[in-house]
This record gives sequence, structure tokens and C-alpha cells, in this order.
Amino acid sequence: MAHQSTLEFSVSGRGTRDITSAVAKVVEESGIQCGIAHVFVQHTSCSLTITENADPDVRRDLETVISRLAPDGDPAYRHDLEGPDDMAAHARSVLTDTSLTVPVGAGRLLLGTWQGIFLWEHRAAPQRRKVVVTVLGV
Amino acid sequence: MAHQSTLEFSVSGRGTRDITSAVAKVVEESGIQCGIAHVFVQHTSCSLTITENADPDVRRDLETVISRLAPDGDPAYRHDLEGPDDMAAHARSVLTDTSLTVPVGAGRLLLGTWQGIFLWEHRAAPQRRKVVVTVLGV
Amino acid sequence: MAHQSTLEFSVSGRGTRDITSAVAKVVEESGIQCGIAHVFVQHTSCSLTITENADPDVRRDLETVISRLAPDGDPAYRHDLEGPDDMAAHARSVLTDTSLTVPVGAGRLLLGTWQGIFLWEHRAAPQRRKVVVTVLGV
Repeated sequence: MAHQSTLEFSVSGRGTRDITSAVAKVVEESGIQCGIAHVFVQHTSCSLTITENADPDVRRDLETVISRLAPDGDPAYRHDLEGPDDMAAHARSVLTDTSLTVPVGAGRLLLGTWQGIFLWEHRAAPQRRKVVVTVLGV
Repeated sequence: MAHQSTLEFSVSGRGTRDITSAVAKVVEESGIQCGIAHVFVQHTSCSLTITENADPDVRRDLETVISRLAPDGDPAYRHDLEGPDDMAAHARSVLTDTSLTVPVGAGRLLLGTWQGIFLWEHRAAPQRRKVVVTVLGV
Repeated sequence: MAHQSTLEFSVSGRGTRDITSAVAKVVEESGIQCGIAHVFVQHTSCSLTITENADPDVRRDLETVISRLAPDGDPAYRHDLEGPDDMAAHARSVLTDTSLTVPVGAGRLLLGTWQGIFLWEHRAAPQRRKVVVTVLGV
């Protein structure tokens, strides 16, 4: 069986948003008991990640780490038409995940206790983002 | 249903190559309408990434970013039998993606407007690379 | 068809462990001939990676690279309740892979000659880790 749904999220700018429950709802709708849930962003300047869902300082520190690896306004960038966060956002997207896949068992996402699914916006300005969720299995 | 095909690409050395249309062709051949397309490189010194498909400066800047994170000829490397780009290539592979998965809907890849699928060669010398595409769904 | 199995591994602390044969065994048990094998860690301070399986110096050098990108005990981290390796482990997890997917053909993992699947522990202390393997296909 295959079930697919496109979700839309409005984000206010750079930062993470927990989308675990929205993905879990698509899994529930699918009726699939055993398989995988695939989550995909249709954009190249935001991404997805699975990380610790309890302490918000973890996501704050992840911003610190990634902003060093792909700094805004780096003079070496040639692609800067949309501002200092433009190329940095593409690089952050490549270093994290455009898609992720979570196992489904007993009809639900088999995440660990401390795992959450996050949409990670890398642009400074507000955006509207599309996320395609596909559930496959039996 | 499951459909699988192994593609081969000759690359002239370090850099990116757009393989979106080759992957799309396998999806078309599969006849699968709803599901996922999984793309996998059978190598540890090249990788795959989804990024902006319009301005080539984006991929040029990605080379700049990744070459700082995993520099060629780093004196800290112990694995250097095949030259200064040997270990750097393995590290670039680990920091990017050995495989990626794209949703399939209405019989085609559900990529966003600005998304392309790229084979990213990390070795300096020409290579011949194998990419396994597997399409699953209904 | 879908087949799922949860594996458990005891690890002595930071470092990599080859889990290729354990994953291959689940593929064999599944009886699936053509499809994909999805491997997922239910934790946010360890990860998975596919890399070179021959020279152990490669994994040693990967530790060197990742320890620069997400250093232990960075004074910028706010999340440090469990010690200097706590936040570093979450960042290493985000920069590498919580899950990975390998094609299955002729009933076996279609890995390249030099590819191994590694569980990568990022915490300093011993841990017990759960890995969910899901095989989908026909």
C-alpha cells in the first residue's frame, strides 16, 4: 500500500518547528501497520532533521554549530542575489536533510522517546513550505 | 511493485553532475504512480545531493563550503594512500549523502521547482560511478 | 511485502561498529528479492553512516573531521547537562545520519565492494542502542 499527503507550513524565519504530530497524523490516515514514512521538503533553502525533542537549547545549539559551518554573508560566496542568508541556506540544506525516513510499526511512527521530526528553516524571512509525506507498507 | 535499475556515469573529476532526468526516466519505466524513488551510489568517495538547479554558482559555493569542512591533504589524516583527495573524499561523502529518496506522485518525481538531483564526485581523477535506482509503490 | 526487526547493540563508547552483517541477516530473513532495506537508530546522540570498510584509519580520520565540526565542551553550547560530549553528540548526529537506506536486489544488500554500514556512537560512555531495520519490496 502507498499513501501520500502534502502538508504546508508557514514559518516566521530561521529556526526549527516540530512537525512530528503532523507526520504521525498522515501515518494514522494511511492505515499502514508495518513499513516506512518518508518526509520530503520541496525546497533547497530549508531542511528536515530528527533531533532531541525535550530541551529547546539543543536546537539553539544546533543553530550555533551550523552557522559556523555555513556562515551568512561569507565573502567567498558567489550566489548572493537574495541576501547574506541565501547561499548559507543552500549549504545548510545540503549539510542536513532534504528528506528523512522513519519506520512504521503497529500503525505508528517508531521514533525513540527523545526523537522529534523538525522542519528547519534556514532563510531569515517568513516562508511557506511544502512537505510531502509518503507512507509505504502493509 | 518494485522496479530497479543500475545507471553508470563517467565523470571527469571533482564536481557535480545533474542526474535528475536519468532518475526520472527510471521512474517512468517503472509505471509506478504513487510511492518513492530511492537513489544510491555504490561508492564511498562520491555522493548524492539535492540542491538548487538554476544557478551553477550554488554548486561552486557548495564546493567552497565542503572543502573547508573536509580539506584535501590535511596533515591529521592517516588514510592518504591514494593522494591528498583520498580521505577528504570519504569525509565529504559522509557529510553529504550516499543515498537519497524522492516521493513519486502521478507517476513522476515530486521535486520542487528549484530542486535537482546531483551526483557529486569528490575525487580529483576521472571515475566511472554506479548508481542504483529503486522505485517502490503502486 | 514488509519485514521489520529491532536489533540491539552494546557499545563501549565513542567510535564506529560495523553492523553490515546484522542488517544483511534481516534482509535474508525477509525473503524480499527486490526493494530497499531501511536502517534507523532510535536515538539522538548516535548515528549511522556508510563508509569505507577496509582501512580502519578511515573511521579514525572521520572522528578527527567530525570532532572539529562539533567539538566537545564548546563554551557556546547551552545544553551540557550530561557533560562535554552531550551537545557534541547531538550535533554529530544531525551532521551524519539517523537513518539510511540500501537497495536490495537478488535478495541481498546491493552495497559496493568497499561499503560497510556503521553504527557511530558519539557519547563517551557505554550505551545500549536500538536499531530498527525495515525491508520493503517484492
